[in-house]
Amino acid sequence: MWTFNDFPVDKVEASYGFSPSAEWLEHVRLSSVRTGRGCSGSFVSKDGLILTNHHCIHTCIQQLSTKRSDLVEAGFFAARTKDERRCPNFDISQLVEISDVTDKVLAATKGKTGEAYTNAKKAIVAQLEGACTTSDKVRCDVVSLYRGGRYNLYTYRRYQDVRLVFAPEVGVAFFGGDPDNFNFPRYNLDFGLLRAFDDGKPAQVQHHLRWSKKGPDEGSLVFVSGHPGSTQRLLTVAQLAYQRDTALPERLMSLAELRGRLHEMGRRSAENERIARRTLLGVENGFKALKGRREALADSAFFADKSRAEESLQAKVKADPKLSEQVGDAWGEIARAQAKARDMRFDLRYQEYHRGFGSKLLSIAHTLVRWSEEKSKPNAERLPEFGQARSARVKASLFSKAPIYSQLEVTMLAFSLEQLRRDLGPDHAFVREVLGKYSPQGLAERLVKGTRLAKVAQRKKLYEADAKTLQASKDPMIQLARALDRHGRVVRKKYETEVESVVTRASERIAAARFALLGRSVYPDATSSLRLSYGTVAGFEHLGQEVAPFTHFAGLETRVTGQAPFALPKKFKARRSKISGSQALNFVTTNDIIGGNSGSPIINEAGDLVGLVFDGNIYSLGGAYGFDERINRTVAVHSGAIIEALDKVYGAQRLVKELAP
Amino acid sequence: MWTFNDFPVDKVEASYGFSPSAEWLEHVRLSSVRTGRGCSGSFVSKDGLILTNHHCIHTCIQQLSTKRSDLVEAGFFAARTKDERRCPNFDISQLVEISDVTDKVLAATKGKTGEAYTNAKKAIVAQLEGACTTSDKVRCDVVSLYRGGRYNLYTYRRYQDVRLVFAPEVGVAFFGGDPDNFNFPRYNLDFGLLRAFDDGKPAQVQHHLRWSKKGPDEGSLVFVSGHPGSTQRLLTVAQLAYQRDTALPERLMSLAELRGRLHEMGRRSAENERIARRTLLGVENGFKALKGRREALADSAFFADKSRAEESLQAKVKADPKLSEQVGDAWGEIARAQAKARDMRFDLRYQEYHRGFGSKLLSIAHTLVRWSEEKSKPNAERLPEFGQARSARVKASLFSKAPIYSQLEVTMLAFSLEQLRRDLGPDHAFVREVLGKYSPQGLAERLVKGTRLAKVAQRKKLYEADAKTLQASKDPMIQLARALDRHGRVVRKKYETEVESVVTRASERIAAARFALLGRSVYPDATSSLRLSYGTVAGFEHLGQEVAPFTHFAGLETRVTGQAPFALPKKFKARRSKISGSQALNFVTTNDIIGGNSGSPIINEAGDLVGLVFDGNIYSLGGAYGFDERINRTVAVHSGAIIEALDKVYGAQRLVKELAP
Repeated sequence: MWTFNDFPVDKVEASYGFSPSAEWLEHVRLSSVRTGRGCSGSFVSKDGLILTNHHCIHTCIQQLSTKRSDLVEAGFFAARTKDERRCPNFDISQLVEISDVTDKVLAATKGKTGEAYTNAKKAIVAQLEGACTTSDKVRCDVVSLYRGGRYNLYTYRRYQDVRLVFAPEVGVAFFGGDPDNFNFPRYNLDFGLLRAFDDGKPAQVQHHLRWSKKGPDEGSLVFVSGHPGSTQRLLTVAQLAYQRDTALPERLMSLAELRGRLHEMGRRSAENERIARRTLLGVENGFKALKGRREALADSAFFADKSRAEESLQAKVKADPKLSEQVGDAWGEIARAQAKARDMRFDLRYQEYHRGFGSKLLSIAHTLVRWSEEKSKPNAERLPEFGQARSARVKASLFSKAPIYSQLEVTMLAFSLEQLRRDLGPDHAFVREVLGKYSPQGLAERLVKGTRLAKVAQRKKLYEADAKTLQASKDPMIQLARALDRHGRVVRKKYETEVESVVTRASERIAAARFALLGRSVYPDATSSLRLSYGTVAGFEHLGQEVAPFTHFAGLETRVTGQAPFALPKKFKARRSKISGSQALNFVTTNDIIGGNSGSPIINEAGDLVGLVFDGNIYSLGGAYGFDERINRTVAVHSGAIIEALDKVYGAQRLVKELAP
Repeated sequence: MWTFNDFPVDKVEASYGFSPSAEWLEHVRLSSVRTGRGCSGSFVSKDGLILTNHHCIHTCIQQLSTKRSDLVEAGFFAARTKDERRCPNFDISQLVEISDVTDKVLAATKGKTGEAYTNAKKAIVAQLEGACTTSDKVRCDVVSLYRGGRYNLYTYRRYQDVRLVFAPEVGVAFFGGDPDNFNFPRYNLDFGLLRAFDDGKPAQVQHHLRWSKKGPDEGSLVFVSGHPGSTQRLLTVAQLAYQRDTALPERLMSLAELRGRLHEMGRRSAENERIARRTLLGVENGFKALKGRREALADSAFFADKSRAEESLQAKVKADPKLSEQVGDAWGEIARAQAKARDMRFDLRYQEYHRGFGSKLLSIAHTLVRWSEEKSKPNAERLPEFGQARSARVKASLFSKAPIYSQLEVTMLAFSLEQLRRDLGPDHAFVREVLGKYSPQGLAERLVKGTRLAKVAQRKKLYEADAKTLQASKDPMIQLARALDRHGRVVRKKYETEVESVVTRASERIAAARFALLGRSVYPDATSSLRLSYGTVAGFEHLGQEVAPFTHFAGLETRVTGQAPFALPKKFKARRSKISGSQALNFVTTNDIIGGNSGSPIINEAGDLVGLVFDGNIYSLGGAYGFDERINRTVAVHSGAIIEALDKVYGAQRLVKELAP
């Protein structure tokens, strides 16, 4: 997960005899995109065609569906450019520039602690991002690397008009469903095609990846360019123990219960199934991902390694008087802050972090309430998510025309309100204020029935309104959002002051010591910023068995039972024999990836696209805390499988021609 | 949790100046009963009236309900003895004799290991229990104490005709529902009255507890006599880590998801709600109990204490050459066996332990298949649950007329089958054999629709049939049970040989060393055998606040919101003002209890009943692994509250007269 401006060309050269040039790196970087919903993708034609995963655009496909025309089930193919359909509230960004702002950030926060530190950091970040964001077409992020060891300013070209061009049926894209998720061997065509538009016309891009029909060989050197979301490899043992013992188990139990509710809700009718599906898929995926993480930490050998590594670093620091003085009691400070975080976790979760309670309407209400207060403040004093650099996103999320389903809203709200009462207890003042004499279900129904926020026009009105108007609103969802906002600001400030800033400052000192001792021999934790990883196509061992690196269309046959999720859609079933059984379908590589890398291109030495990342194997989930090259694997769709399917199953010749002319 | 034959009279005398006599102990023991479903209770009249918790007889109340007459919601009161209604498949037992069989068990297993040990132990237990079980009215259990340090034979007088006499509405018994469960302050009338019948007439019992209307005072010495189910206080650190990191989280996630499904299933209709309710209550209760346990282990200070205690014991053993030789590498053996148990946990769970898959029909099918094979074997060679001593229970469970709800059966089976595929993976041979081309939901529907086992007559037929008939059966539930039986026997044998017997033998050596060092200064782990605990009525500190030991009817008012579970049933609401607000309702004591103690009487020095155990506070859940007198509390209904409610709300004067003449 190397940054593009710090890629270890020499190491790659030494191991594989291939040295990526500056032009090669620039070409790959400018061909890569980040999608609005935390996925990756790549330009694959000069006319702005974008390849990503089906699961990355599932929401868009569902939003473009109707009761009569379920594009998730049936798939979608725009026969002509003008049939391509805009995804609501969806954008993509291309990283055009990286600049180092470490000195500026450190200068602005020097000597500060607690709230003063948090405010100073917010202010400098807002200032840097604000100055850089010159239009709606530009997006700027100050990226923290090495847990505050370095700060970079990433400037992105932003495309807000992104249209759906092609999507296979979900039964093909997500064949094997949840049981196969994070597993290998796999048989998925988890891809989709979008197109970036600029001023109403297909965007003309200077860089895009050429398509290799042949794909990679076993042992080939391959690169993954994408946006890994988040790893926690530099966390201290105290922080890891908190994840293992508290944060992950609690989140998993909550997701498991929600999963059960959504599953059963979906069984009531076909319409319900359609409504619940997207949320359920997200919950299932999140559940399995966190489950894998928890299991890695619960592995006593893995945890012991982490402990030993920390002890070894501590010993090295201790042996160096200067470092020792700089680091001080950083580990102790983090452990004590962690204990505080544990005590305030339910207040923080329900009053600030989980403020949408899983409901789109409440989330909108909350954003409107906060926006009405934040918009009149100077940029530097605003909550970061309402800063100038983020204002386009705030607006887009509020004005999205994506459908809102009352029944799903009630289900999500009722569940969250019940969890709230369960975790804080029926006698907690906040619980009493929120629930009053209502049951969680009763309140959820009242809120969804009583709010007018389902109408975009009403949101627009309140977006323009002042704080007083919001304060006076009788809309029950706005009223709840006001209570959340009020309590949330208090607990957030407390958390930022007593925990976050303490942890950040202490982590920076540990990170600085690591730099001094290890240099840049390791890459920084993932932070959703663009990274380039290298690896090879290689199988792995699972429960004592060797797993081969490729699957083929022939193998798909043995997996079909005819029952979901092991059923194939009719059309695909009828035409799949046109594709040779020996055509590779999926494959695994040793690249180090994590959630957010979904949709990343796999690129060969020639800079051509040979595959599409869509998953990791079960062991890759522990990658949040550490990468184990023996068993962690990236799971990808073979480039040839996509072309074959477009050509022979879907009759999408106009795309085949555009992709592989 | 002292045994009656080893009660520390001197310690109680020294601390409280009260010395329970042999007669006092015998009176309390013979007044105590164990109920068929793992609860406790007590005789409270000479005519066999039994006091226990509403939640202990919820199943009976539900089974006696119909669509038209929901006794769970409405409550039940038999105006005359002849209106008392028999609980299906329900029995109670009274402990009449305890004898020591340690020497016999140790002699029979001496020098044996692995399978030979398991078989020898099974054989001697079956022999001892078999010889003792002289009729259907007798039940005998060989009870293992101090993890195999001692073996006692417990002889019970068994009553199989047990009738429902009185039950309040669930809204009163379980006021506050799941949010209040394991919490205090509480406001519950969680009681119910049964009557033991003998040859069709009310049983005449020689011992019963007199009722104290006044109840206990703060600081009073009180005793709890009951059947604590299971504690794991002597587990090694390796075993505790397995519970913390694997067993408890996995079980909790599964229960959470099932809870979500049952909740949502119940929301479809009032009838569904009724059908799912009992199972849902059980799931919620189990979830919260295990959650409390996990949290105790995840508390790093608690776990560190456990580690230190183990290291201290190891050091003492090491310092004593003879003990050291006897114990050998017991801790290492357990740790290695634990690692094996971890590897085989999914096979064991799905092929043997969880063989009913949460379905009554599959459970019946499995029992029929096993019974057909086991019944022709000599007693000593049978699986213990099919030994002569258990045969009455096997029959009772098979021939129960309790209703079976198809929809609930399908929900439970579909869930378990999905979990099976998820945990073992779609390519596992057992998964392929069980599911074939079906989806979990499809197979569940097929099984429930296709089986004839809903009819008791069909079960009776197959109970009498030979193994061949069962082997040839085309009933799909029997067919699945056959597959489970076959695989289950293999994995069970492997587990018993490679894990269980190793752990038991090693635990015995550690337990023996503990005896040598600590004597009987501590009581043995709970094993569902009758125990007597002493303590006092005392509040506790929670989140920095002092919690008073009593609640009163007046406090109930402030908790009522009118919405379930904080709503009161109409009749109760209308008449509750007849009870003085100053009447005590619930209280807490320092007695050490655990699940299974529900329904236990709380007894004063005079031997009178002053309260009814129905719960523990949240900290009591960690009691599975260790008792902390500062914060662990027993939660009870006040004896006076019960009499007041019977008298003034329910007009049950015939019972008031019988209880407190």
